[in-house]
Amino acid sequence: MTTIMTHDELEAALRAIGAAHYHNLHPFHRLLHSGALSKSQVQAWALNRYYYQSSIPQKDAIVLARLPDTAARRVWRQRLVDHDGEHAGDGGIARWLRLATGVGLDADYVQSNRGILPITRFAVDAYVHFVRDRSLLEAVASSLTEMFSPTIIAERVAGMLANYDFVSPETLAYFNARLHQAPRDADYALDYVKTHARTREEQELVLASLRFKCDVLWAQLDGLYAAYVAPGQIPHGAFLYQAEKMALAG
Amino acid sequence: MTTIMTHDELEAALRAIGAAHYHNLHPFHRLLHSGALSKSQVQAWALNRYYYQSSIPQKDAIVLARLPDTAARRVWRQRLVDHDGEHAGDGGIARWLRLATGVGLDADYVQSNRGILPITRFAVDAYVHFVRDRSLLEAVASSLTEMFSPTIIAERVAGMLANYDFVSPETLAYFNARLHQAPRDADYALDYVKTHARTREEQELVLASLRFKCDVLWAQLDGLYAAYVAPGQIPHGAFLYQAEKMALAG
Repeated sequence: MTTIMTHDELEAALRAIGAAHYHNLHPFHRLLHSGALSKSQVQAWALNRYYYQSSIPQKDAIVLARLPDTAARRVWRQRLVDHDGEHAGDGGIARWLRLATGVGLDADYVQSNRGILPITRFAVDAYVHFVRDRSLLEAVASSLTEMFSPTIIAERVAGMLANYDFVSPETLAYFNARLHQAPRDADYALDYVKTHARTREEQELVLASLRFKCDVLWAQLDGLYAAYVAPGQIPHGAFLYQAEKMALAG
Repeated sequence: MTTIMTHDELEAALRAIGAAHYHNLHPFHRLLHSGALSKSQVQAWALNRYYYQSSIPQKDAIVLARLPDTAARRVWRQRLVDHDGEHAGDGGIARWLRLATGVGLDADYVQSNRGILPITRFAVDAYVHFVRDRSLLEAVASSLTEMFSPTIIAERVAGMLANYDFVSPETLAYFNARLHQAPRDADYALDYVKTHARTREEQELVLASLRFKCDVLWAQLDGLYAAYVAPGQIPHGAFLYQAEKMALAG
């Protein structure tokens, strides 16, 4: 426990966390990718995830504000460009909005964040607070789930195109950009934590930060599962609160 | 929408929120009270709720620190006495710990907060952050779920004693104290929001704060439901992560 890990050992420990706890393993994703969800359930996923997507530049702006050197800020700045875009209609948030409208949601409704699940808000806000309140090392480390995103993206795009007639390649354009952005961001953050975690204790904080972030992603799917798949109850005010959930299946 | 409500109208609007959205309506509570849960599932409930219970005095200390006058602080101070007690082993947190050990959990494990669900942490922390970051009026209003707790307590105590042979009156002693503490606290907070919400806009903030708090309570049960009842997956590191969840039923 007290010996410092080599860079390779640290990377292997991070990859082991991803292999065990990344949200590609969540039952909701298996249903999503295999075509087992109704259109309304896919809409619920797209709607809630919009809140996550639109919070990412706020999270990255906090990291940016905490990075003490020009070179690092210059690199991290690109994340804001990727998500907020160069002009109206450009960037990851706009592309996620097109995904949401592509599956039949109203753009104003999506952007209002009315109808998202409380769990979505609590989990995403916990991520933003984590990046604000923890050390800079932990803030950077919490972004490392990007290491695992190319796998889930490939699986998702293939599965959704094959299984849902209301999903087109244009609807999923968000993921095309992420396939090259995410590995570039993950490489930088991985190199950063290898270099800046100089004790075993700091390396353990890095691992815990990735576990935390896996929890943030997992909890969002638990929320969707509890509200829209399990025979529970859709929380007050959430998307389709008034409708019969049972009518959704199929 | 713009006319100010009378005190009675405000109270009626608060009670309507409780009637529609308080967590007594959650499917997990129906299972808990009717005896449909296994001992392990009851343990999961007790374990996770300990994190909520033990965060309440931190929440109340924040309110206390924000109350500007002596008389109000003197009243609110009692909440810390109720939860933290007068000496070791006294108070609501200690009583909840006895509930948790009474259903078979290890006290050190419970107090470590290892094993709680990420959703529990996100929802409870959201409550503490809300009380810190919103106006004092909203902070006080978010405590108003106590208005509805006597009903659920009566239902819970009767149901659990009748339906689980591993639950004794001593195990549930926490709730005896709450039956007189909660109405006293709720009466004070209700009077406070009636007096201090001086515009319709402020009254709407009061209503939204109670809705938020109902969401905090509801989300914790969604988390328990997704992890321990639905055919999902117990999150990494959470209570019984290693066990087969399916083996729990019965």
